[in-house]
Amino acid sequence: MAHPVTPTVVTEDTITDVAAERWGTAHDPRTAELLTALVRHLHAFARETRLSEAEWMAAIRWLTEVGQISDEKREEFILTSDVLGLSMLVVQQNHRFAEGATPATVLGPFHIEGSPELGYGADMSEGLPGTPLYVHGTVRALDGAPIPGAVLDVWQADSDGAYESQLDVDEARLRGKYTTREDGAYCVRTIAPLGYAIPMDGPVGRLIRQTEISHFRPAHVHFLLNVPGYEPLITHLFREGAEYLDSDVVFGVKRELVVTFAEREPGPTPDGGHSDVPWCEAAYDFVLQPA
Amino acid sequence: MAHPVTPTVVTEDTITDVAAERWGTAHDPRTAELLTALVRHLHAFARETRLSEAEWMAAIRWLTEVGQISDEKREEFILTSDVLGLSMLVVQQNHRFAEGATPATVLGPFHIEGSPELGYGADMSEGLPGTPLYVHGTVRALDGAPIPGAVLDVWQADSDGAYESQLDVDEARLRGKYTTREDGAYCVRTIAPLGYAIPMDGPVGRLIRQTEISHFRPAHVHFLLNVPGYEPLITHLFREGAEYLDSDVVFGVKRELVVTFAEREPGPTPDGGHSDVPWCEAAYDFVLQPA
Ligand SMILES: [Fe+2]
Ligand SMILES: [Fe+2]
Repeated sequence: MAHPVTPTVVTEDTITDVAAERWGTAHDPRTAELLTALVRHLHAFARETRLSEAEWMAAIRWLTEVGQISDEKREEFILTSDVLGLSMLVVQQNHRFAEGATPATVLGPFHIEGSPELGYGADMSEGLPGTPLYVHGTVRALDGAPIPGAVLDVWQADSDGAYESQLDVDEARLRGKYTTREDGAYCVRTIAPLGYAIPMDGPVGRLIRQTEISHFRPAHVHFLLNVPGYEPLITHLFREGAEYLDSDVVFGVKRELVVTFAEREPGPTPDGGHSDVPWCEAAYDFVLQPA
Repeated sequence: MAHPVTPTVVTEDTITDVAAERWGTAHDPRTAELLTALVRHLHAFARETRLSEAEWMAAIRWLTEVGQISDEKREEFILTSDVLGLSMLVVQQNHRFAEGATPATVLGPFHIEGSPELGYGADMSEGLPGTPLYVHGTVRALDGAPIPGAVLDVWQADSDGAYESQLDVDEARLRGKYTTREDGAYCVRTIAPLGYAIPMDGPVGRLIRQTEISHFRPAHVHFLLNVPGYEPLITHLFREGAEYLDSDVVFGVKRELVVTFAEREPGPTPDGGHSDVPWCEAAYDFVLQPA
């Protein structure tokens, strides 16, 4: 077998080009593009910072720990991406909606498939303590036309800041699917969400504690709308005036998604029912971008 | 508590600056520098490639798997860094030695602390099949002065390409510490190494199989010299003419580290002994950079 007389000599000056070229041999052109760009940006980071070997090893250890603490209930790499602003950047550059359409925000790690289908005004918080909250409005197209039969997949944290996926529970908890009526209207009965801390007992938390970064998210409810003919919409509604709106640790807040949670006295509720205790009302129309 | 009337609005245009500024609050200035640069380069990668959400999720899954397959015997994140050329870049930019000094190369994931101390010419391959190899020469300073009492920590793969750390064995296997004599001379008796494949049964292997990249390393022996008064040296010696010298999957080959493994007939050996079988001789002087 023929061997080159002179082996490829990799120097500090040439290694980035050599590595990028090598990964550019990926059979799929998009994979080749991604891997080549990854090599270039990763090397640019190491060169710009003149990364030391001790720092490199610390990064290796940190990444390994992020992988090892992850399981079905915990997604520490998603959390890493979230707190670095990468998740929100990716969301935004893939969902450049028209003005007037409801903007997208991060999915987060807590969505669960197969939530129960609930009727207009049904209570997805049954049995849990908290101030009753009615979120209601219309799902509409950009031209204002109401969209009947649109499904809103809704989930949120409990009053301890915990999502069902973080708990050992048997029944669906604080999540449900609501379908719009013929007039495009929806009505969700839940409890007013509170701000919550992201998991701080792992490598992401350890990193955040070395900074001045707040590790809280402002109060919000998650919505996912997958309506045929429209762009899928993954978003939140945030409570106006809530703490941490200006410092959301995952960069998820958009002005258009901050809505008033009006405080109401006991009395009639938007679903035609009645509340014996004070309650909150959030009126919001979701406006979908055409596919 | 006062809340801002208008929350920070993060847009696709502003999120990188906002995130970089936030991580710039790390209390340690170097940590702040590293995290700020990380945010900027990570976002630049996502922007340049217009990373999709599906690609982002595939990356999250891949990274999680890299962490989860790692254990005391397997360092898949080091392997990732190695095959992307990052390890070799970091080595080179941290060890810019003078011309004439032995260059550094990657440590690799297979070094074990506490190898047994062996005498001049002692056999670290005892009981293992292979062609006898004597690696011998002098450890010297840049001005040529021999360095007595320098310790060479040596390790290599067996004829199956496996390192001790990849096997379940009780005794030290193909590794040892050799100390230079008063005249700076060292002599290692081992077996001629062969090229070997990196572990291909994990996420790194899966990625490499999607490309034209060779997953082999050319035949080499590892050396680590930690001599007071000199820069620590982590390096390999490669066998001249070996397969894969031009395509080392971890970019570790440097021209100065490729040495002749001369094939010798049965007869006297460099340690003053005798070989009854054909053997190989590699003569190499390690030249250390002053600290
Ligand atoms: Fe949430
Ligand atoms: Fe090796």
